[in-house]
This record gives sequence, C-alpha cells and structure tokens, in this order.
Amino acid sequence: MLTVQDALIRLQKFWTDRGCMVVQPNNTEVGAGTMNPATLMRVLGPEPWRVAYVEPSVRPDDSRYGENPNRLQTHTQFQVVLKPEPGNPQELYLESLEALDIDIHAHDIRFVEDNWAQPAIGAWGLGWEVWLDGMEITQFTYFQQVGGQNLDPIPVELTYGIERIMMAQQGVSHFKDMQYAPGITYGEAFGQQEYEMSRYYLDDADVAVNQEFFDRYVAEATRMIEQRLPVPAYSYVLKSSHAFNVLDARGAISTTERAKAFSTMRGLARDVSQLWVERRKELDFPLLKTEAPKVLAGAAVRHPADDPEDVDLAALPTDDQTLAVEIGVEELPPHVVDQAIDFVRTSLTERFGASRLTHGAIDVVGTPRRIVATVAGLAAHEPDAESLRKGPKVAAAYDENGEPTKAAQGFARGQKVDPSELVRAEFDGAEHVAVKITEQGRDVLAVAGEIIGGIVDALRADKNMRWDDPQLSYSRPVRWIVALWGNVVVPVHASELTSGRTTYVHRTDATPLVRVDSADQLRNVLETHGLVIDPAARRQQVIDQSRALAECVGGTIDFEGESALVDEITNLVEQPHAILGGYSEKHLELPEQILTTVMRKHQRYLPVRDSSGALLPYFVTVANGDCDDELVKLGNETVLRARYEDAAFFYDADLKQPLADLRSGIGKLTFENRLGSVADRADRINDVAREIASQLELSAEDEKTLARAGELAKFDLSSQMVIELSSLAGFMARDYATKAGETPQVAQALWEMELPRSAGDALPESLPGAVLALADRFDLLAAMFAIGAKPSGSSDPFALRRAALGLVSILRGHRELGAITVDAGLSAAATRLRQQGIEVSDESIAAAKEFIVGRFAQQLRDEGVPVGLVSAVTPLAEAPGVATQALADIDAARKDDRFEALVEAVQRITRIVPVGTAASYDRALLAGDAEKALVTYVDELPNHANDALRQWIPDALPLVAPLAKFFDDVMLMADDEVLRASRLGLVQTIVERAPRGIDWRALNSALG
Amino acid sequence: MLTVQDALIRLQKFWTDRGCMVVQPNNTEVGAGTMNPATLMRVLGPEPWRVAYVEPSVRPDDSRYGENPNRLQTHTQFQVVLKPEPGNPQELYLESLEALDIDIHAHDIRFVEDNWAQPAIGAWGLGWEVWLDGMEITQFTYFQQVGGQNLDPIPVELTYGIERIMMAQQGVSHFKDMQYAPGITYGEAFGQQEYEMSRYYLDDADVAVNQEFFDRYVAEATRMIEQRLPVPAYSYVLKSSHAFNVLDARGAISTTERAKAFSTMRGLARDVSQLWVERRKELDFPLLKTEAPKVLAGAAVRHPADDPEDVDLAALPTDDQTLAVEIGVEELPPHVVDQAIDFVRTSLTERFGASRLTHGAIDVVGTPRRIVATVAGLAAHEPDAESLRKGPKVAAAYDENGEPTKAAQGFARGQKVDPSELVRAEFDGAEHVAVKITEQGRDVLAVAGEIIGGIVDALRADKNMRWDDPQLSYSRPVRWIVALWGNVVVPVHASELTSGRTTYVHRTDATPLVRVDSADQLRNVLETHGLVIDPAARRQQVIDQSRALAECVGGTIDFEGESALVDEITNLVEQPHAILGGYSEKHLELPEQILTTVMRKHQRYLPVRDSSGALLPYFVTVANGDCDDELVKLGNETVLRARYEDAAFFYDADLKQPLADLRSGIGKLTFENRLGSVADRADRINDVAREIASQLELSAEDEKTLARAGELAKFDLSSQMVIELSSLAGFMARDYATKAGETPQVAQALWEMELPRSAGDALPESLPGAVLALADRFDLLAAMFAIGAKPSGSSDPFALRRAALGLVSILRGHRELGAITVDAGLSAAATRLRQQGIEVSDESIAAAKEFIVGRFAQQLRDEGVPVGLVSAVTPLAEAPGVATQALADIDAARKDDRFEALVEAVQRITRIVPVGTAASYDRALLAGDAEKALVTYVDELPNHANDALRQWIPDALPLVAPLAKFFDDVMLMADDEVLRASRLGLVQTIVERAPRGIDWRALNSALG
Repeated sequence: MLTVQDALIRLQKFWTDRGCMVVQPNNTEVGAGTMNPATLMRVLGPEPWRVAYVEPSVRPDDSRYGENPNRLQTHTQFQVVLKPEPGNPQELYLESLEALDIDIHAHDIRFVEDNWAQPAIGAWGLGWEVWLDGMEITQFTYFQQVGGQNLDPIPVELTYGIERIMMAQQGVSHFKDMQYAPGITYGEAFGQQEYEMSRYYLDDADVAVNQEFFDRYVAEATRMIEQRLPVPAYSYVLKSSHAFNVLDARGAISTTERAKAFSTMRGLARDVSQLWVERRKELDFPLLKTEAPKVLAGAAVRHPADDPEDVDLAALPTDDQTLAVEIGVEELPPHVVDQAIDFVRTSLTERFGASRLTHGAIDVVGTPRRIVATVAGLAAHEPDAESLRKGPKVAAAYDENGEPTKAAQGFARGQKVDPSELVRAEFDGAEHVAVKITEQGRDVLAVAGEIIGGIVDALRADKNMRWDDPQLSYSRPVRWIVALWGNVVVPVHASELTSGRTTYVHRTDATPLVRVDSADQLRNVLETHGLVIDPAARRQQVIDQSRALAECVGGTIDFEGESALVDEITNLVEQPHAILGGYSEKHLELPEQILTTVMRKHQRYLPVRDSSGALLPYFVTVANGDCDDELVKLGNETVLRARYEDAAFFYDADLKQPLADLRSGIGKLTFENRLGSVADRADRINDVAREIASQLELSAEDEKTLARAGELAKFDLSSQMVIELSSLAGFMARDYATKAGETPQVAQALWEMELPRSAGDALPESLPGAVLALADRFDLLAAMFAIGAKPSGSSDPFALRRAALGLVSILRGHRELGAITVDAGLSAAATRLRQQGIEVSDESIAAAKEFIVGRFAQQLRDEGVPVGLVSAVTPLAEAPGVATQALADIDAARKDDRFEALVEAVQRITRIVPVGTAASYDRALLAGDAEKALVTYVDELPNHANDALRQWIPDALPLVAPLAKFFDDVMLMADDEVLRASRLGLVQTIVERAPRGIDWRALNSALG
Repeated sequence: MLTVQDALIRLQKFWTDRGCMVVQPNNTEVGAGTMNPATLMRVLGPEPWRVAYVEPSVRPDDSRYGENPNRLQTHTQFQVVLKPEPGNPQELYLESLEALDIDIHAHDIRFVEDNWAQPAIGAWGLGWEVWLDGMEITQFTYFQQVGGQNLDPIPVELTYGIERIMMAQQGVSHFKDMQYAPGITYGEAFGQQEYEMSRYYLDDADVAVNQEFFDRYVAEATRMIEQRLPVPAYSYVLKSSHAFNVLDARGAISTTERAKAFSTMRGLARDVSQLWVERRKELDFPLLKTEAPKVLAGAAVRHPADDPEDVDLAALPTDDQTLAVEIGVEELPPHVVDQAIDFVRTSLTERFGASRLTHGAIDVVGTPRRIVATVAGLAAHEPDAESLRKGPKVAAAYDENGEPTKAAQGFARGQKVDPSELVRAEFDGAEHVAVKITEQGRDVLAVAGEIIGGIVDALRADKNMRWDDPQLSYSRPVRWIVALWGNVVVPVHASELTSGRTTYVHRTDATPLVRVDSADQLRNVLETHGLVIDPAARRQQVIDQSRALAECVGGTIDFEGESALVDEITNLVEQPHAILGGYSEKHLELPEQILTTVMRKHQRYLPVRDSSGALLPYFVTVANGDCDDELVKLGNETVLRARYEDAAFFYDADLKQPLADLRSGIGKLTFENRLGSVADRADRINDVAREIASQLELSAEDEKTLARAGELAKFDLSSQMVIELSSLAGFMARDYATKAGETPQVAQALWEMELPRSAGDALPESLPGAVLALADRFDLLAAMFAIGAKPSGSSDPFALRRAALGLVSILRGHRELGAITVDAGLSAAATRLRQQGIEVSDESIAAAKEFIVGRFAQQLRDEGVPVGLVSAVTPLAEAPGVATQALADIDAARKDDRFEALVEAVQRITRIVPVGTAASYDRALLAGDAEKALVTYVDELPNHANDALRQWIPDALPLVAPLAKFFDDVMLMADDEVLRASRLGLVQTIVERAPRGIDWRALNSALG
C-alpha cells in the first residue's frame, strides 16, 4: 500500500526530475501552500521559477478535534509552481498522478472550471479543480495577478490535496485511518496534535493576547516595509494572518475588526509584493541569468506542434476543397464552449463573406477541448477584381486637339500607365478620365490563414487569462491549431501558435496525437477516437445513456427540469460515458433539496427519481470517455457518501440549535467589510420591510407573519448546512423554521424572501415574503451603491443586476405592491444604513435608482416592448408596477382608434403650452362654439393625475373630437393676453387631469 | 553532481526504507531539529518512534548577511531519531553516507567524543561528532534525559549538517556556491532571504515588541500547560525561545533577563515534558500497540551476535588453555580507553585470584572499540576443596556405648550421611563430630563466564549512559563479547549480551565480522586486519609515522610538548595512518598560538615545525586505517583552511576594535545566570586584586601595571577570536593589548592572570599577573560556593578544583605572596559579591576555604609529602606559602638530629600543659639546677610565634638539652600550686615562642 509519506516522496521525486526545486514548508504557520514565499513572492517579476514542496496548511477554522473524517486544522498540501507555465502542465500533472499509482486510464479524471481569487492579497487566477471520479483532488490555477500586480510570465500552480488523494487511494473513510508510514496511521502520528490544536484554536486561545499579536505583527511588517526588507516583512504578514485566523476560529472577530484587518493585510501584501519586485530588480533579477530549459524533462505529451510543411503553390488543387479547422484548447468552462462555437461560426461567416472566396456551408461544433469548423467547397483562389481609379475631368484631360493635357499625363504617370490607356467613366454625374485597376485575387491559403489566425486572436470570453504566449488571451490557453484545405495545411499564425495537421484526442488515448490527412477526415478522425464533437449529438447521448441507466433501476430523470445541468454536463465531456451510482437509502431522510443540491451543484450528477417524482437512491454521473466503470462508480459513490454524511451531520447539528442561536450566529458572519455583519444587514432588512409594509394595507395575520419572519430574517446563514451549501439559503430557513414550530406562513415568508434567485425563478407569493424580498434587495442595492461597489462592465460580484431585476419583477408581479416606488424603498434603506453609521450619499441613492430603472427598461425591451413605449412609461418606471400597468392600459387602449388621436392631442398641448401655464380658464371669455364645446367636456373631466391610464382613458376619449375642433377653429395664441391665458389654461387643464408620468411625446411617437 | 535537494531526498528515502516516518519541518521557528516536537516530545515515554525529517534551523545569532562562507541564520539539518536505538545506529549511519555518494572506504570517518547537554530544556546525552576527513558533519547522540526526565527506551539522534556535508561533497568554499538544485545555486535560492533575515535579526527587529512577544508567548504556554494541552503549550515554548533568540541577536538581553528567561523556559520545558507523558499515558500509549520490528531493514552490519555453541563438557580439554576476551564497544572517549584497560586488568587479576583456577600472565590492551584481555595457561578446572561441617560436641554425639546419639543421628541425617561417616575434629578447642564436605571445583567455563560477565556489568566511566539494554550502563554501548578458552566459547551473559567467537574489525573492512577459532588467535586476527590493539605500540606508530612525514618536508614534531595530544590521538584510532597536510604560508602571519590551538583542540593535528621550533605550514593528521590518502589530505586541508580563514577574519576584526570597546563588550556576555555578566566578574576581580595588593608592598611600576591590567581584565572574552576559540583567552588579551600599545607589563599581566590553566602549567611570573590570577580564582570560588555550585563527585563544571589548585600554586610559588591567606582573599571576594547584590553566606565562604585547604592538602600528598607532615602544617594551609615554607624548613631541619628531639619536647609540652596555662614564670621559684638552666635559655628565646620555622629552629635547638634535663630532673606537676604554675608557665613559654600553626603532635608522629 502506498503510504502518505511515500506519496509525498514520490511527488517530490517526480517534480524534481522535471526540474523543480524543492523547498521546505514555511517556518511560520500558513493557511495554504500558496502563501509560502516560495510561491507568493517568486511568482512576481520576470524571473523563472520552478518549485515543489509539501506545505502543512494550518486553518484554525477547520479545527474539529480530529473528529470530522475529512476536516483537519492542519492538512497537507503538495504545491508545485511552474513559471513560466510550461505549455503542457495538464499533461505533466496527469503523469504525476501515475507516479502515485493512479491509473489515469481507468479513472475518470476531469478538469472542472474553478477560478481562484484571494482579494486579501490582491490575487487571482483561472483554472480548474481536478476531479478524480468526482472528487476534487487538486487545484490547478494559472495565476494572473498577485499583490495587485499583473504577472509576466504567467505561472501555473498545482495544489494537491494529499489527504483526499490518499484517503481515496487507500480506500479509507476517516483521515485517521490512513497509513501514514509503514506501521503507523495518520491518526497515530498526528491525532493528538489535531485534538490539542483544535482545543487551542476553538476553545482556549487567549483572545486579548492574540489580538495583541496581530497588532504587533502588523507593526513589525510595516516597519520592515519601511526598511525595504520584504522577506521579514512578509513573514510578519503571515504571522498576522495566522493570528487573525486564530481569533476568527475563536469567534472573536467583530465585523469592524475584520474589515480593518483585511484592509490592513491587503495593503501589506501589496507593499510587500511591490517591494519584492523592486528589490529583485535592484539585484538585477539574478535568476534571469541562469537560462532554465524551455521544455521540462519527462515523458508527458506536449500539444501538437507540427513543423511547417512546404507547400508547392503551383501544385495546389485548383478546384474547391473543404476547409477544416480545429482550435485546440485546454478545458473551457461549459458556458464558454457554446459561446466559442457561436463566435467562430459568426466570424467565419463574416470574414469569408468579406473575402472573394466562394464557399458552401459553414459548420461549427465543439467540445471543452476543441472548436471544430468546416467550410464546404472553399474555392482555391479569389477571382481578380477590377475597378476604376478616377482622374481629372475629361474636359481638363484633353486639350482642344484631343491630346492629353499635363493634368492627364501627370495622372497617367502617377498610375504608371501610358496616357493612351486612360479610359472615360462617369463619377458622380461628371465624366472623368480613369485607370482600370485589377486587384489580384489571393489564393485560399493566404486568405483562410489570415482569417483563422484573426479568429484565434479575437477569441474572448467573459473572463480571460494569459498564459505563456506573448499576445493571446482567452478563457483558457489555446494550445494547437489544425487547419487543412483539402489535404494541404493552411498556414495559420496566431501569436506564436502555428497550424499543422496533427490533432490531439483524449489525453489518455493510446495515440493521443493523430495525423489528419485531409480536411474531410478531421471530423472522422476525432469521431473514430470516440470524441462526440457535435454538442447536440453529445447532449442527446448524455440523455439517452442516462435515461437507459435510470431505467435499469426502474427510475427516470427529469431532463426538462435538469436542462441547465444537462447543458453543463454536455460541455464538461468530449465523450459522454454515463455511469450509474447509488447511495444509502437512509440519506433519503434528508430534505430532497439538500440531496439534489449536492448532486447538481457539487457533483454534476443527475438525480434519479421514481415515477411519482420522488428521489430514488441513485444518480447518474457522466464520465469523459472510457474508464473502469466499477472503479469510477465506487469512487463517485464514496464522494457522495462523504458529502451526504457531512450534510446529515450538519443537518442534525443545526436542528439542535434554537433559531435564536442561529439568528445571533449571523452576527459573526461578515456580510461585507464596510457594511457590517449579516446580522446588521438582517436588521436593516427587517426595518426596511416594516417601512414598506407601512405603505400597504396588510392583514393582521400578514403583519404578524412579517414581524416574526423579519425578526428571523437570514437566520439560516449561520447554519452549518448553509455555510456548506450556500445555495440552500432560504430553503433551510423554511425547513428549520417549520421544524422549530414557526407558523407555515413565517416559514414560507423566510423562503420567499430569497426569491427570485435567478431570472425566470418563482416570485414570492405571500405579501410578507414579497415585502421581505423587496427590503432585502433595496438594502443590498442602496448599500452597495453607497460604498461605491456598483457593477461595472463584466463585473457584478454582488449580483446587483439580478437583485434589481428581482426587485422590479416582484413589484410588477404583485398588484398590492404596485405603487411602491423605488425611491421610497431606497430611501428607507438609506435611512437605515445611516443609522448603522454607514455613509450614504444622495448621489449614490440616485445612482441606485437610475440603475434599477435602467434594469427595468432593459427588462421591458427584452420582453419585446417597443423602445418607444418603454420610453413613454419610463417616468413611471420608478414604480414598476404602475409602469407595467400603464403599458397594459396602452395596449388595451390602442384597440380604440381615438386613443392615438387623444395621445397626439395631449402631446400637441404639452408641446405648445408654455411652461408655467396655469390650468385654469375663464369660462366667460371662452365664448366661441368650439371653445364652449370643449369647456363643457373639460368641466366634466375628472382629475386623473394620480390614476392609471385605464381610469383616465374612458373619460378622456370623448375629448378627442371637441379638442380637434377647438384646434381647428380657435386661435390658441390669441393676441389678447387674457384670452390667450384662458385658452391655454383650458387645454392645460386637460393635460393636468391626465395621469402623470407618461412621456406623451414618446408615446405619440410609439403609437405613430 | 549531487545537489543539495537530491541529498535531502536521498536521506529521506534511505531512512524511510529503514522504517522511519517522515514529518515536515516545524511550522514555527526552531533552532535545531531536536526542538521539533517530533523529536523533543516523542523521545519521552515508552512508545517506540522512528522519524526522519529536514529541519531548517533558525539561529538569529548566526546571522552574517550571507557573507560568511559557513555561517547562516537558517541552516539545514537532517534529523533522524530512532527509539529505541536499534543496536547498530553507527552502521546504519555509515550506510546512509554511502547513499550520499560518500565513499566510506576512501574517506577517514571517525566518531569523536562529543556530548550534548541543553540545560535550558533539562536534556543531555552522550555521543560523538562524526568527522569526515576532519570535518564535523553530524551530531550523534544517545539521549539520556529530556525535560529533566530519564528516557526509557533510549533513543539515538543523528543530526546531519547538510550545508557542511554538501559543501564538502561539491567542493565549494562558500555556501552560496553550492548547487541547490539543477540550475540553481544555494545563493540564488536563499541568498536574499539570508541577507534580509540577517538584517532583521541583527539590526532591525524591534526590541520592545520582541520582548512583548516573549512575555506573551510564555503566558500562552503557561496557560496551555494549565489546560493540560502540551502540544499548543510547546508551540508557544518554541515561539518564546525564538523571540528570545531574536532579542539575543540584537544584543538586547541583559544578564538578569537572560537568567530569568532561561529559568522560565526550563520550567516550561519540564512541565510540557511531564504533561506529554501523562497525556500519552491517559491515551494508553497508543504506539505501544503497534509492534515496531526490532531490526531495521537494510544491509547495514549488525554487531556480532553468534548463536550459542553446544559445548560437550565431557570433551573439554583438560590441560591449561589461553583465555582470550574481547569486549566490543562503540567508540570510547580517548581517556576512557586507558581507564577501561586498567579496570579490566585489575578486575581479571582480582577475580581470577579469588577463584581456584590456576593461570599465568594476564595481559590487557585496547582501542576505542575494544578491550582485549588474555589470561595465559588458564586451568580447565578448579581443584575440589575439602572442609568440615561442625556437628554436636563429641560428648553429646555418642552415648556411653559409643553409639551415635539422637543428636548425632539427626545431624548425620541433615547432612545426608550415615552416622558412621561422621569424623571428629576440634572446633574452638572443643571436640565435635563433623562431616567432611567436598566443594566441587567448577570448570573453567563457569568460572570464567561469571567473571567476564561480572566485569562487563561493572564497567563504569566518569560519564555513563544507557542504551537499548535493560541493565548495562557505560561510557558508550557495549555491543559484543568474544570469549574463548582454547577453542571453546566461554558462555558469558551480561544483561542481554552473550559471548561468541566472532569479532568485529574495521567497520569498512571487506569482512567486518571475523570468526576466531581459538583464544590464541584473537590478537592475531585483529592484527591481521590492521588493528593495533596495544596502546603502547599504537602510540609508537603515531609517533614514528608522524615523524617520518614531518621529515619529508624537513620538519619535526615536538612529541614531548604534544604528549597529551599524542595520547589522545592514540586512543582515537585503532590503526594509525598518518597523513601529511599543508596550509597556506600566509596563515603563518597569524599568532602561532591561534594556529596550534586550531590544530590541536579542533582538529587533533600535530603541528610541524622547523629545527628552530618555528611552525612550518604543515600538519599531520592520523586517520583510522587505510583510506585514499590524497582525498583525506585534501579534505583535512579544506577544513583547516576554512578555520584559518575564519580565524584570520576574526583576528583582523578584533584588531580593529579599541580595547575599550572589547572591554565594554564583555558586559553582554553572561558569566553565570546568577552571577551577572563577565564584565561584572571582571570588575570584581579588579577590586579583589586591589584589596590583595593592599596587603603587599608593590613597586610603583607594578601598581601602575596592576591598575591598568585590572581595568582591562578579561576584555578579550568579547573578541571574536576568543568567542570562537575560548582556550585562547588571556593569550589574545596579551596579543591585542600589545598591538593596542599597552605596556609589555600590562600585556603580560593580562596573560598571566589566566595561569595556570592546568596542573603543571606555568605560573604567573609578574606580581601584577599573580595578583590578578589570585583575584580571578578567589572570585570564582567565592561566587560559585555562594550560589551553591560547588563540585560534587564527578561533576565540576566550573573547574573549581583547578581554580583552587591554581590559587594554591600561585601562593606557594610567589614568596611575595606567601602570607596572603585564603581567608583574606575569600573575604575580599565575598565583600565585592555582596556589593553586586549577590547573597553570600558565611557558611559558603567557610566551605570554600575548606575546599581550598583540602585541595592544598591533596596537592601536597600528591607531591609525596607524607600524610603526617601534611597534617603537621595543615593549620598553616590557609596561607599555603607559609605552609610550604614550613615544610621546607622541616625538611632542612631534619638533618640535625636535635630537631626531632625538639619537636618531641614541644609536643610533650603541648600534651602535658593544661589549656589556659599562662606563659609566665617566677624565676625566683625555679631554683633547681635544671630549672635555672632552662630559665636561662628561655629567658633568651626570642618570640618566634609569627615567624617561620627556619627562623625559630636555630634559636630553639639549644633548648633541647636543658629541656631534656628539666624533664628528667624536675617534677613538673609539683604539689605546690604556685610552683607548679611557674614550672608549667616556663615550658608553655617555649611553646608560645614557637611558630604558630604547626601541629606538633602530627609533626612529632611524622618525624618519629
């Protein structure tokens, strides 16, 4: 049996054999291998660096007295940093797993999107978590920034979770049972330490003393930065971080302290990073002098990089040929796969369309590792194109003798033709001399090469990264390009990548690199090697295979309900290989939501149900290609069992806690550094909800429900279950509240206050739920805008767009809430925030309102409401319920032809009548027929200023005819000032008795 | 080339292959691998433990900004702990060197006594430093105590100094130049860290903050001990220790603080250790349950352990045979070798003498690894011995008929004989019946086996250790016994050791284990394998080989002067193999004392000189047996070069320092925790010297010299050279003082104050030097006795015996000082100590005096002065000069026969005259002839009470005759009281005019 220590030694050996240096764990406590200066400092600056080391990672918060089977206050990471990333880190990594006796052909190993960001040190990167039969065993990250500085070259970091890997390898279910070394278990070696350090971190650490440690460590770090000594400075940053973690584990960090501490540590990390690079520069970057070999030793596959082929242009086929293109990438996140296919399809279509090459159908498909495009019947050559270049006017071009003038001669000379070759042509109606220009058609290789290269250059996703390429930037590294026209390689250059004819199938294929003879064979080659490159076909295979497996156990899968999951699975694999797994029936006692959340979110498993829709203790996982089904099934079952056991543990533990304890527990959770704890936020929500409710007529029962639910708001966020599975927030609130004996209404309101969780999600049905949901979102938006955390471009970390849309949806969806304005809600939220000492500027509230209104308008446009109509009700948009009603009223009113005339008339009045005109008229002065007729109507027109359109329209429509006559007959702008005032006042009265908040000009345009 | 990291990986592999567990370095700074809890805690208690790990050892005090080629604030230890020690740790260790590509057959590898004690954690052990061609590469220690607790089982600790080993292996002279990993040097990897952390430790660490850290860490450790959590407690002990080291490196530890800190840490370490064992016991010593294999895997030689041989007792030879015994040990310290040989010789002689086995000569020789004894012509059997057992008296044994009585019958029955077999014999003059008892003679195997076993059991040295044996205890482990009588194995049992016929020659011999057929062959076998087991022969070889090598370069060696070193070398090897090495002539510029001290003390090299006695740049080292001479020469030369370069660096640096700076530097050196700094002590010495001088008549020049030398006393102890080579104290003072322009007298006094450094060493010649030397020793003795640190048994850590002897020697050697009393010196010292706030009891001063006087008496006895004479002058011994003079006077006076009579007479008077008798007489009453004659003489006798014997004797000798006549003729104890008083007063006057302080009774006995 491979012991834990053997595993560490083998990894050391593996990576040193590949040119890595070994360093020792840090001699002050760190929370992760990343924090060892051998990573954190060395990834900065231009020097190459390759390092591998063990790092016992200390996380006081994970202390469990050694009782939890998977969680330890000190766990073992094996950390590898390769800088620059070597071009094939995934392949090297897979080879390293083999060094641990992991059969990568038998197991299902996948790279699942997982990005890393540690704002506390201004660091982020993109990458994956590596799954071994469904278990996360490694973090794999291309670092992009550290200490707020862009990295160049780009390093890749591999962090192996040794306990996880070895528990799986040894088949034990508690960390203590692992063989650590021959004859000694992990528990025997480290159990007492685990218990005692847990005691210290959770129970016994002196809070005041550790607080002092923190302050003093920070002071020393700061002094050392001033002394320009980044190494000791950083050691004190680490010490301060550990002191902070100890305090945190002791539950001793107040929100204010946390905010301050994070800001302090972030600042120190930034300073240390800058200083490190400065100091290295002063030392002239010593490691730049020793040239590290570009290619790491070892047998790992490298991506295809064919030598350029000599092409005999003269021998090129002259007839049309298929163009086949494959852009090879490292595992794209699932949602990027579809985007990439669309982008490549659109780009090819546009770019070939802009060329003069004739071609047939363009077809693009793809998987996480490749985008494959074919262009049928692509011509060998662009035809030449002729055009005329304009010279002088004919009149000026020839003298009276018909001889070319100096002007014509000069033009001809400039165009390098003989004057006799000049022709005549009309330009803009005048006759000029001109030269015929022939634009030479280019051959297909040049055109297609340029197009494909341009597309690779232009690939972008929502989050992009750099890798060891001087120019390219994309979701994940692009590693190879296959480009064939017929059987000729199309020469493509995209930064340092060049095209070839070798593709790269499954990494674990017997022959991972395969030569493709011609464009027509590309898809065939890929399919022969098992890859299902058409997403639609792949999706269907996922469904068909899963359904068949579910049926084996008399079950079914709700593919419609799981549609998003099926989409994700489809783009997690290149060759769907569904495997049925099971779990213990006893876990069915847990709430279904827990079980399915774990399956979907964490494991991407499809839950199997019986015909009534109830869960069966089975799931389907979809592996990527052939594997040892039984092994993979067992592995996945083990992972799920551990997760369910954890969940059951959390659930039971939570149920033992009184709701009041859970509610006070959220006081220890930071919501946002500057915005206090989650409890602070819940308090605000409660208050804002009461304020909103005060504008409504709530039944006594609803009031009671709201009061109680408001008190409990967000309490479940401190439950272990929600801390573990945050997407269960609200759901667990309902469950725990119900079990604690709260009324069903209160429980429901607690659940509904989280709705809608996404576009298209259900809305709160109960009024208390809706009010709380509104209060939640008003607080969020007001608060975030107050601290300047509004969304920008692609970044919306607090999901404010979703919050605004949810808010609007609730207001639109609940008639009772229709009149609640954004202003009122934001203002209540602002008041409450200020009471908590948070500065809220009026500008920020105005900006929040503008943001919400903007979201509403966008929502309307997305729903197909014409832009003009949207504009017409935009003044109403601050009460989206009202605005929505207005749109409905307009829609209804349009059936009556007079409505358009009415609107036009109102619009005409608003256009003509000067600002400030009083809405009053002297009946005596208005003596003409048309005047009197109109007065009669206006006198009887009720004031609908505060009403909805539908209430005004029936009363207003009769005005259309008399108003038309009035305008026809009466000189509105009478010379007599008094008369004029009365006439204007009359029509102004009409406007002022119309509902407010309609942009009549916009409405008129929209209807016109 | 083997890189540093490869070396670490190979050692890991080597030791894990032998059942060691690997752990990670400690995640808080430690000064040595020993301090990692994987050693410090796990060696406690009964549980087995085998561990190997890398430990970056942080020693702030060793910070040198990365500039010193050999010294780093963080160096790399590789630590191995085997508990219980496996019986062959040296062999395993040698094998591990081979794993580092070190050819143990080519190099000279030696185990040189080096014991370890860390009083700060109540820990000590015995062992060696391992030399590789003269360089210390490993500490090898059998731990005996940790945290004040005796260890059982005994662990062995191996600590490899990785930088040293690898610098040697790679042949580089600066640590930065080592290849750490392929393509990266040690300097590139760690140079910046070394510089910056040096900056922190030496220059920039905030003293107040680190002081606070220390206090708070101690507080947390203390609290955790109260919570019974040894693991977190210990982590805070380590943190406090590091904070202390930082403060120390910053020069910020006052003497008081140091004393307090050490006491605190010692207490914590003790508590943690106890608690750890308690906690493990509560957990039921979990690791006792998993049985670790007794024998470590691997190819390493194990010590001989023959299976017992079946002996056919009937077939034993009946004639005398040689007995040969070999007691095999691990490398004994050189001085123990001679002691062991003596002990075994004496024991064999006594024990065989007490047996009834006849035998011839007993011969014992030995080396560091074996004591070899032969007993010639040892008989096969003891003769039977007859004796009588006493029964009833004959009178009671037979009735009137001559028949045995019941008493006789009972006696016979009890003795299991027939009554007819009873004989008659006389016991104490009465005739009894008796039984003849024949005591069967035992065979040689039984007798010799018991004797040899008893001797092994009884082996003891000044410092003894335990190892993995339940009973034995000796200087180093006893590993095997060869015992042959003729060709028969003598069965010996000593604890778990049993005898055999396999010996163990050089560990690197082609056949290290060799069978010995018969006793007569043992020596032959050993010699055939190159071992020179006779110390005299070995010593001669050392001399002959060294001389021959020195002659090759025209040099010579002062074997007489180096006699002690030659003795040591003789017992450092089993097969002398001298190798000549050289060093750069430029180093000859250094003072010779430095060069020779390094050679002798550190390297055990014999210095080579020219015919005038001046050093030549050569040395001779004596390797242990065959090796690659050139390689070993180069290795030794490299070590010496590094040491000389260090020394030159220190010397130059010291010379740049004004003496005043050096003098104030000793204020930072602790002398002893309770006794202040070295500066405090130097101040005391200066004052005590003035006090002594005040009792003398010093010339003006001497007074000036003494004043200046007193001011400077001990200044050189803060010089880098003396810190590095403490035996140069005084010598460097003279050198630096001279170079700084002090007078030759002052320089000489500073040197002389350190004399004598050992028995037989030169004494101070100048009076200022002698006075300072006295003051030094009076202070030392008074101070140490004051704090209760007087020598006990074998322990004399402050060398108080040497100090007392030195003091006495100086007083005896300088006529001018003759009258200085021990009382006066101690009293001056006590006064000065008290002025520094140190408590000094009168009892302690009395004890110190008694100790000094006792040493003096012992010294006299050792010089051959008869015990009686010593007693005679003991009352004078508190002024050893006076006492010495008295002895000389006695010696001289004895030539005159009258002297004995004189002494006898004086003794007679002191015996007869009652205490309190007044020394006066009424001349008128003393009218008899004899009386008058004596009065005449007495009247004229000068009072010599305060004079020396030699002054008194000429005046007193004429008294002998009249006194004899007086005693003959006069009735001393006259009946008349007045007359009696006058007669007694007359003779008492004689006594009182004799020199005081002579024990006349003792002197009389001694002369008699």
